[in-house]
Amino acid sequence: MSRPSETGRLDQLIGEARTGRPRAIGRLISLVENQAPELPALMATLAPDTGRARVIGLTGAPGVGKSTTVAALVTELRQRGQRVAVLAVDPSSPFSGGALLGDRVRMQQHALDDGVFIRSMATRGHLGGLAVAAPQAIRVLDAAGFDLVLVETVGVGQSEVEVAEQVDVTLVLLAPGMGDGVQAAKAGVLEIGDVFVVNKADRDGAHAVVRELRNMVALTQRTPADWKPPVVSIVAVDGTGIIELLAELDRFFAQAAASGLTARRRLARARREVESLVLARLRAAVPTQGRDGLDALATAVANGRLDAYTAADRLLVSTPSGSTTA
Amino acid sequence: MSRPSETGRLDQLIGEARTGRPRAIGRLISLVENQAPELPALMATLAPDTGRARVIGLTGAPGVGKSTTVAALVTELRQRGQRVAVLAVDPSSPFSGGALLGDRVRMQQHALDDGVFIRSMATRGHLGGLAVAAPQAIRVLDAAGFDLVLVETVGVGQSEVEVAEQVDVTLVLLAPGMGDGVQAAKAGVLEIGDVFVVNKADRDGAHAVVRELRNMVALTQRTPADWKPPVVSIVAVDGTGIIELLAELDRFFAQAAASGLTARRRLARARREVESLVLARLRAAVPTQGRDGLDALATAVANGRLDAYTAADRLLVSTPSGSTTA
Repeated sequence: MSRPSETGRLDQLIGEARTGRPRAIGRLISLVENQAPELPALMATLAPDTGRARVIGLTGAPGVGKSTTVAALVTELRQRGQRVAVLAVDPSSPFSGGALLGDRVRMQQHALDDGVFIRSMATRGHLGGLAVAAPQAIRVLDAAGFDLVLVETVGVGQSEVEVAEQVDVTLVLLAPGMGDGVQAAKAGVLEIGDVFVVNKADRDGAHAVVRELRNMVALTQRTPADWKPPVVSIVAVDGTGIIELLAELDRFFAQAAASGLTARRRLARARREVESLVLARLRAAVPTQGRDGLDALATAVANGRLDAYTAADRLLVSTPSGSTTA
Repeated sequence: MSRPSETGRLDQLIGEARTGRPRAIGRLISLVENQAPELPALMATLAPDTGRARVIGLTGAPGVGKSTTVAALVTELRQRGQRVAVLAVDPSSPFSGGALLGDRVRMQQHALDDGVFIRSMATRGHLGGLAVAAPQAIRVLDAAGFDLVLVETVGVGQSEVEVAEQVDVTLVLLAPGMGDGVQAAKAGVLEIGDVFVVNKADRDGAHAVVRELRNMVALTQRTPADWKPPVVSIVAVDGTGIIELLAELDRFFAQAAASGLTARRRLARARREVESLVLARLRAAVPTQGRDGLDALATAVANGRLDAYTAADRLLVSTPSGSTTA
């Protein structure tokens, strides 16, 4: 248990975050990032205040204009009086912390606006990884009263798919002149996009990208089948098409509320989060030392003295039960 | 336990695989792919016969010439009388089974050679995923007496890193004209390469790629620090440079044996494999149904009635201990 003074400090941070104070919100997200011991208390306190924010994922290859698009969306949403949080995650790289916010020069116009919160987050090495860290950070922002949470990720391989699992709706961003045909074809991006956005629509080749994308989307099997992902053309740098994009998002949320899709996605997200926490705790209970610990058994497997199944059996016998670790 | 007739059938398959019969080897790898109930018995039988094969990972972006390079390596190794297995894996896509062997026309010259075994393997959805399936398939090929096992993967995002964890040495393949500068810069490929190979070295821009790569490799922090990854130029389509590439591999294996690197990597691999099996079994023991099952608790979390930590605690209490599931 936390000491009373620590609990008081946490309560104060939570109170300040609820009034939208950026420093308090940032401190709470740092607790998420650092797997702080206060996390269970924090999440238990925040739980009743969550579920209101729309959580929007934005993904796309480097160079398509993600930061510019986020900035344009934020500008329009602020004019409508909405409070917006931007969370940038890079779950794919085990090596670098990522400079995802590096070129976020365009976001500086929002730096002094308390209705906008911008934060990058490292999730690698986190207990349970992105499946735990992203929902926790989203809950902090949700409880802090943001109407929208934009989760931005770099577009490499598996990371889009992982981020799509954490959000209510996924925007896939493309641009003309980024290589051979529609880059979305790789890595299953066609399957995860709820709305496709072609940025730099004033450039040569934009029409071809839109046309090709529409054809590919029409051919892609999707669940649920009742939503046909639209393809929206924008020029993020001057705001062209942003109003139309937000209208498509509204249309998505209305239909997803009626069909129960948003509720189903949120349930699946909660399920993965709980399961990840349980697995992380079970994993922590696996002994490494001793005659039947992981170190000794792995050595025996590497040397061909034992197979991995027999090693796993022995390790399970020496692992305390769930009830004793809880 | 297996019935006697099934055990007899498995023993017969293992016996035939040891003599190098491709159909028997293929059947054993299918057991791995399908998580067959015979797997623990199979792995226990094979364990003493493993640890001899050199396991070589080969990765690179689509279009750099992976298949052609594999074919050229196989041709030269066969001339030296070595038996070679090729295992193609695509761990990154949750959607398609992958057509990794689709353009393997060049491999057809080896189709009737019993000293060559070629197989693609799906690992998504496998109990424990690639961390379990790849070492198991490699053990089958190792026990079947292949001198080298080439593990080929498509070069997208996280998959190279995952495959690098399964092999003794990682070759990273590049080619000129594949986009902006050295494509390796993305996704941490520089950190995982033990030997860099520039294919299509007769084309314009190949010298620039080699030079740029050498500079980047020199600047990359690596573990262990005592091996400086060489950059080898080849023209896979006519076999140019393949002898030099194999010489660099020999040099790597000699140094890695002396420094203990190969032993350390094999131990880390065994450790991940055992841990993955343990976690998969613990996960299977988590209850989904009932008042304190995963379904009900995830619903409470999604609705904000409960936080994920409290849900995880309750789920752990209702999870049987390791000893009762083993």
